[in-house]
Amino acid sequence: MTAAAPAQGAPLIFQLFVMFAGAKLLAEAFCWLRQPAVVGEIIAGVLIGPHVLGWVAPSETSRLLAEIGVIFLLFGVGLETRPEAILKVGRVAFVVAVLGVALPFAAGLLLVQSLGGSLVQALFAGAAMVATSVGITARVLGGMGLLDSTPARVILAAAVIDDVLGLLVLAAVAGAAQGGVRLGQIGATAGLATAFVAAIAIFGAPMMTRAAGHFHKLRAGNEFFVIAVVLCFGLALGAAYIGVAAIVGAFLAGLAMADTAERRPELRQQVRGAAELLAPFFLVNIGMQLDLGVFADRDTLLLAGAITVLAIVTKIVGCGLGARSLGWRGALQVGVGMVPRGEVGIVVAQIGLGMGTVDNRLYAAVLFMACATTLLAPPMMRPAFAVRIAEAEAEQAQSEAVRK
Amino acid sequence: MTAAAPAQGAPLIFQLFVMFAGAKLLAEAFCWLRQPAVVGEIIAGVLIGPHVLGWVAPSETSRLLAEIGVIFLLFGVGLETRPEAILKVGRVAFVVAVLGVALPFAAGLLLVQSLGGSLVQALFAGAAMVATSVGITARVLGGMGLLDSTPARVILAAAVIDDVLGLLVLAAVAGAAQGGVRLGQIGATAGLATAFVAAIAIFGAPMMTRAAGHFHKLRAGNEFFVIAVVLCFGLALGAAYIGVAAIVGAFLAGLAMADTAERRPELRQQVRGAAELLAPFFLVNIGMQLDLGVFADRDTLLLAGAITVLAIVTKIVGCGLGARSLGWRGALQVGVGMVPRGEVGIVVAQIGLGMGTVDNRLYAAVLFMACATTLLAPPMMRPAFAVRIAEAEAEQAQSEAVRK
Repeated sequence: MTAAAPAQGAPLIFQLFVMFAGAKLLAEAFCWLRQPAVVGEIIAGVLIGPHVLGWVAPSETSRLLAEIGVIFLLFGVGLETRPEAILKVGRVAFVVAVLGVALPFAAGLLLVQSLGGSLVQALFAGAAMVATSVGITARVLGGMGLLDSTPARVILAAAVIDDVLGLLVLAAVAGAAQGGVRLGQIGATAGLATAFVAAIAIFGAPMMTRAAGHFHKLRAGNEFFVIAVVLCFGLALGAAYIGVAAIVGAFLAGLAMADTAERRPELRQQVRGAAELLAPFFLVNIGMQLDLGVFADRDTLLLAGAITVLAIVTKIVGCGLGARSLGWRGALQVGVGMVPRGEVGIVVAQIGLGMGTVDNRLYAAVLFMACATTLLAPPMMRPAFAVRIAEAEAEQAQSEAVRK
Repeated sequence: MTAAAPAQGAPLIFQLFVMFAGAKLLAEAFCWLRQPAVVGEIIAGVLIGPHVLGWVAPSETSRLLAEIGVIFLLFGVGLETRPEAILKVGRVAFVVAVLGVALPFAAGLLLVQSLGGSLVQALFAGAAMVATSVGITARVLGGMGLLDSTPARVILAAAVIDDVLGLLVLAAVAGAAQGGVRLGQIGATAGLATAFVAAIAIFGAPMMTRAAGHFHKLRAGNEFFVIAVVLCFGLALGAAYIGVAAIVGAFLAGLAMADTAERRPELRQQVRGAAELLAPFFLVNIGMQLDLGVFADRDTLLLAGAITVLAIVTKIVGCGLGARSLGWRGALQVGVGMVPRGEVGIVVAQIGLGMGTVDNRLYAAVLFMACATTLLAPPMMRPAFAVRIAEAEAEQAQSEAVRK
């Protein structure tokens, strides 16, 4: 009955147990302190990671689990979002995304140039500050029961557009670093990515809703969940193939299945199970990569601090300006929700490092910025959404009273 | 919104999509042909694997997913099994396990010795033929809706005991290969493993049922599922630490949560989602390892054939004798259900290979036996369980008629 010899099995199962149980223990502690559970799960990663306790190090295993985790996290978020609601906020979301890309890019560019960096270095710093990592925000909003609010919808839609824009910025910057920007190629990428996203956002849900009427003909059991997972992996693969992030595909797959899930509560619970199991690995993995040793060198520390502050301020101002039609509170909520850069900035910086245009100091600073924005956004979201949280909690208390 | 750069993400998401969609496509096809879905999923692995289409090769990724997959498969099976039902068949299961270990071990030993192998080689061949891999059987029984039958309970309980016995046989054989069997150490391992399994089987369910009354105090959401997963990983880790298979721990964790799951349908659906997502990777991974090239060498082919036939016959006879109190049909059902060796035999042979006592020919033969028994058991189970399947299908048709 063995899956593998104990000698091989123990390390994997040890990693699984420590990462999952650690994340959930600190999530619970942070909930008691009325702080976002997400922050607890990231800090669990910092604690068990190589720089503090050293129980688990980032590895192929943790990276793999993190990647599947964020795919199911976004798939689950898509599943709980109604596609009409997203399409309705499309115009606002587009402006939010454009301003939220332009301001941080300009800020990063100017900062590094003013510090004496080369133009290519400055371009990379700007590109690394662009793309929002919506996983964290989605998790926080879901945890507060606010995925259904207008700012949440604007954030989700803007994050998808933001990702397409980020892809184009990266293509342009990488082209510039290699000696020439090929406008034709960037235009083709832009057209393909936009067509992919728009087609699935608009036609996905009606098509899947019609197809769902035939799913009962399948015989292999749990057919709705199986088809949902195939669609999730398939669209994630399609998105990655075009050059957009895999999780954009997963989110769109969730959107396409959302109406079906509303009529199939067991599908929703099954996806929730998969997401709840895997998402903690995504968060713990972020925490494990945070190296506090960056503070040892004063210049790196200053650069990291400056980039982080600029990344936060420009995103809030840019996205907030874009969302000013929602009122100042709504604009602030959208701006704060778009702050986390997560692993996107890290990946851009890694590409720059690989091309030899980003040095170790800039790389460390971008890494710090990515972790810090991710860690700081959730505590900022709580006050920004305070009014809505109070409403949601009152509702929950009421429904619990009814249950008793 | 990127999880990783497309260049890094594409291969993983490609593997995920091909393995999952391939498994489910063939599972559906086999269901239409009235064959077990499990066989379709294993054959999907053969097809997409390195020896046929070559789309995906066994890798760190597939191994990791397979290992988590079989943990959740057994956890899910435990969750749908009532612990009293298992304890009730304990006496029969014990005899089934002992005879089902003794006969295959003796047969492997005698075969290899009669072919001129050394005593240590013969001991390893015997040990590799011992341990049942219950994952396949559990999946087939679950697919036929028969997990609740007496033979299914005997199989599940016997597989747990079988695993403890297999552990002791391996310890003894490895000791003999290294020049001396340490009886004291083997006795200690036996005591520890037995105490661990018995304690959780007997006290797990009452303890978790009592504890479940306090779970609502937790604040982090999906608290029943989170605790179930922590328990699953924790007991799997404990089992691996003692030297029993991790999946025995996962099965016991499922048993301990079974009563709670009966009152919490959302917990059951969430675990089902996680298991349905991950289990196909376990099955595909088995198929990917099957190398039909072993047939090229005539001697290896004969050895593989002889070991496979003996492995099937001795398990059916041994376990069937142990279960003769269930009548000849029940005894046959138990015997056939215990046939799959899955990856257990492979692991034993790998250890022998690593110690230099098993040669490549014997290793290839054991590998073939492990895959062949796994692939042949489900089609044998269908006729063996024919009467019960007819009953279950009639029940299902009735309940569907009521639903309409």
